[in-house]
Amino acid sequence: MAVYTPVSADELANFLAGYDLGALVSCKGIAEGVENSNYLVETTGGRFILTLYEKRVAADDLPWFLALIGHLAAKGLPVPGPVLDRQGRALQTLNGRPACLIHFAPGVSVTEASPDTCHAVGAALGAMHQAVADFGQVRANSLGPTSWPVLAARCTGRLAEIDQALPALVTAGLAAAADWPTGLPIATIHADLFPDNVLLLDGRVTGLIDFYFACTDVRAYDYAVTHAAWCFSADGRHHHADRASALFTGYTSALALSAAEIAALPVLGQGAALRFTLTRAYDWLNTPQGAMVTRKDPMAFARRLAWYAAATSKAMTGG
Amino acid sequence: MAVYTPVSADELANFLAGYDLGALVSCKGIAEGVENSNYLVETTGGRFILTLYEKRVAADDLPWFLALIGHLAAKGLPVPGPVLDRQGRALQTLNGRPACLIHFAPGVSVTEASPDTCHAVGAALGAMHQAVADFGQVRANSLGPTSWPVLAARCTGRLAEIDQALPALVTAGLAAAADWPTGLPIATIHADLFPDNVLLLDGRVTGLIDFYFACTDVRAYDYAVTHAAWCFSADGRHHHADRASALFTGYTSALALSAAEIAALPVLGQGAALRFTLTRAYDWLNTPQGAMVTRKDPMAFARRLAWYAAATSKAMTGG
Repeated sequence: MAVYTPVSADELANFLAGYDLGALVSCKGIAEGVENSNYLVETTGGRFILTLYEKRVAADDLPWFLALIGHLAAKGLPVPGPVLDRQGRALQTLNGRPACLIHFAPGVSVTEASPDTCHAVGAALGAMHQAVADFGQVRANSLGPTSWPVLAARCTGRLAEIDQALPALVTAGLAAAADWPTGLPIATIHADLFPDNVLLLDGRVTGLIDFYFACTDVRAYDYAVTHAAWCFSADGRHHHADRASALFTGYTSALALSAAEIAALPVLGQGAALRFTLTRAYDWLNTPQGAMVTRKDPMAFARRLAWYAAATSKAMTGG
Repeated sequence: MAVYTPVSADELANFLAGYDLGALVSCKGIAEGVENSNYLVETTGGRFILTLYEKRVAADDLPWFLALIGHLAAKGLPVPGPVLDRQGRALQTLNGRPACLIHFAPGVSVTEASPDTCHAVGAALGAMHQAVADFGQVRANSLGPTSWPVLAARCTGRLAEIDQALPALVTAGLAAAADWPTGLPIATIHADLFPDNVLLLDGRVTGLIDFYFACTDVRAYDYAVTHAAWCFSADGRHHHADRASALFTGYTSALALSAAEIAALPVLGQGAALRFTLTRAYDWLNTPQGAMVTRKDPMAFARRLAWYAAATSKAMTGG
């Protein structure tokens, strides 16, 4: 949510000299993305997002991320892909940081999702899962099920500082995730398809962005993450059945879910809710006082976790 | 340097419905300006900066600021002016904040100024001082000479925490400013024309922005502030005579400086350097530990203060 590494006009002009994009017209630091420095750059040749990767994104993973968005963009999906320099390279170094120029996508993120939006998002997710069928590169999910007991242990004894109900909810979630489904289709998944990471225009998805949690994992888990992100009120107190139904219809218009995947949705939902409960709880407990960062409430996802524990597949798909 | 007040897509679409600017295409929070929330907004009708004014800008002063930039834009200066809604209003309220939509200006800010850039900036400042001749509205300078002893007193006893040399430099600066020149021409001045607040393209000034320190004060003081901002190395250790000469030639190509104004430049320079030394020192001493704000070094301007104390008008104008 901030610009960490400054880039001067001279440095940027020098950087752009490696591309066939014309001359610099404008550059604004933008508040977007996980924890990187992002600039909206305009040249006489178009508009682009310049990202300088700060320490939270592992530099070794960048070629994988850039190959993925390049693959999806080349398939015609609404995924802004990397721009290649004259030597055909996407990944650069700028001011000591790994950096990449990415195409600009129009559209805005919604905060409150309508069923129509959920239908469009479901269809875009299904199309993405289709398009990665021939993306051969693999990346492990560093925030997958095996990480959750570790994450929980790192919050040990302090979850009750956030909410008295939280320790029991996490314990139940870990127990449920210990019985994680096996044999379901594996794919490249976005793993973080929240409203912030979807750009929309006139009800149409114009951009799927921020693939920096993408990885190779259970495909229907990505559906469950997306359900958790779009089908509840922000505080997690209310599940919206109409959105869930629309998300399902949208997704399955692009890609079928098998009976085994549908049966697994409640436990996958528990896993998804647990993952965001735990990372938010960890950040909550470890954000220094006075830091100008908005802490996200872990309870918003702990409430979803409780919902999924009692949910049926039917409630998640509106079937 | 951050977005403080979020604006959702729905809120923005509703806000834009009051204007004849077409439909929303894109919106990015940008890291720009003093301490306001800024968004780069694109509609089917063009591009705009949406500013939500946070508490540091006095709401009562906003009509004056907006009238000023509207006046300058109407005169054809490279100043992005406010956009009026269908009722002819510039100033709005959005999410509980005073807000305004301002035209977008292309161009980028430079960090290291060349003499050619200083010439262009001087000419733009002179043209601005010309263009305000018939701007009748007055605003007192809340950071003018009478405020400096007050600001210094608020840092009392703590200036040496920043640098052992600072207390004596400030004392000397206050003594010099006590003999402030009288009878010089008064005008509407920008009062903060630092490189951050000038957009350039191909050596041409395309935007003078961030008028939120503008006020009615000694016109040549604005020249001195601009000299302090553009004619030294960032750390204040080196004065660049070639930049000073170019700034002077540029300014006087648009507007003459009288003999009295030129004679006063060293003391006006001391005042300008003192003003930024004091506000930076106050912010330095009062920025909480851990706040994600870059503290600007007061010594960079204390060194300029020492330079001005020994300077001649000739050294400031390259004459």
